[in-house]
Amino acid sequence: MTPTIGVFDSGFGGLTVLRALIARMPCAQFAFLGDTARLPYGSKSRRTIARYAAQSARFLVQEQGAEFLVIACNTASALALDAIQDAVPVPVLGVIEPGAAAAHAASRTGDVLVIATDATVQSHAYLAACRALGLRAIEKACPLLVPLVEEGWIGHNVTAEVIRIYLAELTAEAAAKGLNPDALVLGCTHYPLLRPLLEKAVPSGMRVIDSAEAAAQSAVHLFNGRAAALAGERESVHPVLSAPFVERAGDSSDYTTQVRCFATDSVEKFERLGSRFLGRSTGPVQLVDLGG
Amino acid sequence: MTPTIGVFDSGFGGLTVLRALIARMPCAQFAFLGDTARLPYGSKSRRTIARYAAQSARFLVQEQGAEFLVIACNTASALALDAIQDAVPVPVLGVIEPGAAAAHAASRTGDVLVIATDATVQSHAYLAACRALGLRAIEKACPLLVPLVEEGWIGHNVTAEVIRIYLAELTAEAAAKGLNPDALVLGCTHYPLLRPLLEKAVPSGMRVIDSAEAAAQSAVHLFNGRAAALAGERESVHPVLSAPFVERAGDSSDYTTQVRCFATDSVEKFERLGSRFLGRSTGPVQLVDLGG
Repeated sequence: MTPTIGVFDSGFGGLTVLRALIARMPCAQFAFLGDTARLPYGSKSRRTIARYAAQSARFLVQEQGAEFLVIACNTASALALDAIQDAVPVPVLGVIEPGAAAAHAASRTGDVLVIATDATVQSHAYLAACRALGLRAIEKACPLLVPLVEEGWIGHNVTAEVIRIYLAELTAEAAAKGLNPDALVLGCTHYPLLRPLLEKAVPSGMRVIDSAEAAAQSAVHLFNGRAAALAGERESVHPVLSAPFVERAGDSSDYTTQVRCFATDSVEKFERLGSRFLGRSTGPVQLVDLGG
Repeated sequence: MTPTIGVFDSGFGGLTVLRALIARMPCAQFAFLGDTARLPYGSKSRRTIARYAAQSARFLVQEQGAEFLVIACNTASALALDAIQDAVPVPVLGVIEPGAAAAHAASRTGDVLVIATDATVQSHAYLAACRALGLRAIEKACPLLVPLVEEGWIGHNVTAEVIRIYLAELTAEAAAKGLNPDALVLGCTHYPLLRPLLEKAVPSGMRVIDSAEAAAQSAVHLFNGRAAALAGERESVHPVLSAPFVERAGDSSDYTTQVRCFATDSVEKFERLGSRFLGRSTGPVQLVDLGG
């Protein structure tokens, strides 16, 4: 039987992670939960985020049968990964460590920039994950970018100006500290939609690192490893990965991957905006009540 | 005994309403609750907003002894006024009808513009309140303005450009419908902080109407009327209004008004940003758990 992979976000930004997962695991089943009634997590406290995230994780595991969880939310990964791991008896993968690992692979100078929400930055989770890999990182909260994406101003001159201002402040801070950054980590699942503007805005030679892509790649490795361990054959590949493990960019309309989407509120908004993030229709989104 | 007036918002934007209330009722006691754990209401559904708002109203009445409630939140006023009135046994005043009444008093052409959050606009509560007064109204959701205020970009050129774009779209729509608007209603409690930029951006001759001010004025009238009715003397004035009923603009540091602030999350952020909206320190904010 094909196992179910649970993917969780506070909103629908995490659909960028689901999109990257589908590209790598087209034969898996996915259950995605957006805790839209309580978004954004980015401006809330650790205690509150941990409570919300644990409830959401239990829904995916206990009610949707997820055997593996990907926390497709930087804020929840930064502030609640332990709480989620305590709440459910399945492997849980966040987006922070994969993002930091990808930055480590990309950077030559060892200095990286991170942009994220307020709460992710205040947690200094990227800073810690980068430091553990020997990188020096400078983080900056960019609270206007999520609403700009949700307003649909993806390629707008106002968005370009906001990005220019944020990056100028960030690179000035890096320079003042004597750093020479050559990678920019997108520490929020909304930001991949701004990648074209960000690529234009960064200094030449600076690599843009997408945590969504990095997390999807780590998920495949972790899932492979676990499937192999369960089967007692370390070299085997789980059936969900029976399709070749190659990136399938571009048109994803021919995927038959089974995806069920759930939201705690705003099903209409989720369906309307979600396709921008997922790169195809979300299908009908089911409303769930987590009691919050 | 001085009665307590409860003031409720999803966040701290409603502190602009509290500020206007304090200016008019400096001898009253106020209990303000910001349901910050669950903000923003503006992107949530009617059902969810009604549930959250009713819980918040019960807290102010049952636990803080409020004898009168002002819903200092356009979204909750638009979508949950009935639910709140059902939930508590005290008079409840929202901000929509006072805002529409102030627009009616200000407009000569009878055509008005309204800017607000997504949920307030989708409820068409201002449209209905304006229509009931014989006004024609056109509403527009401006979801970037709240994050711009919260980022502190109150006088920023990016904010000016966003306002220019929103108002250009709104006035074009009004013109296409043959309307000749001469008033702009600020249908969100964050927007009064953008009043200087908005005043510059509107066509000459257009009046900017602040729902916070209008609601505070209505609250005084309603409270006066109720106090008089309770006393059995229709012309008497309740002791909370013993100070002269005049606007006390400018420095409010000499107010001795007793204000207790509560928040469901982010006490630190509330205290840090709240003073911008209240015009003075919020004092220590108490964290409360509404079980959400």
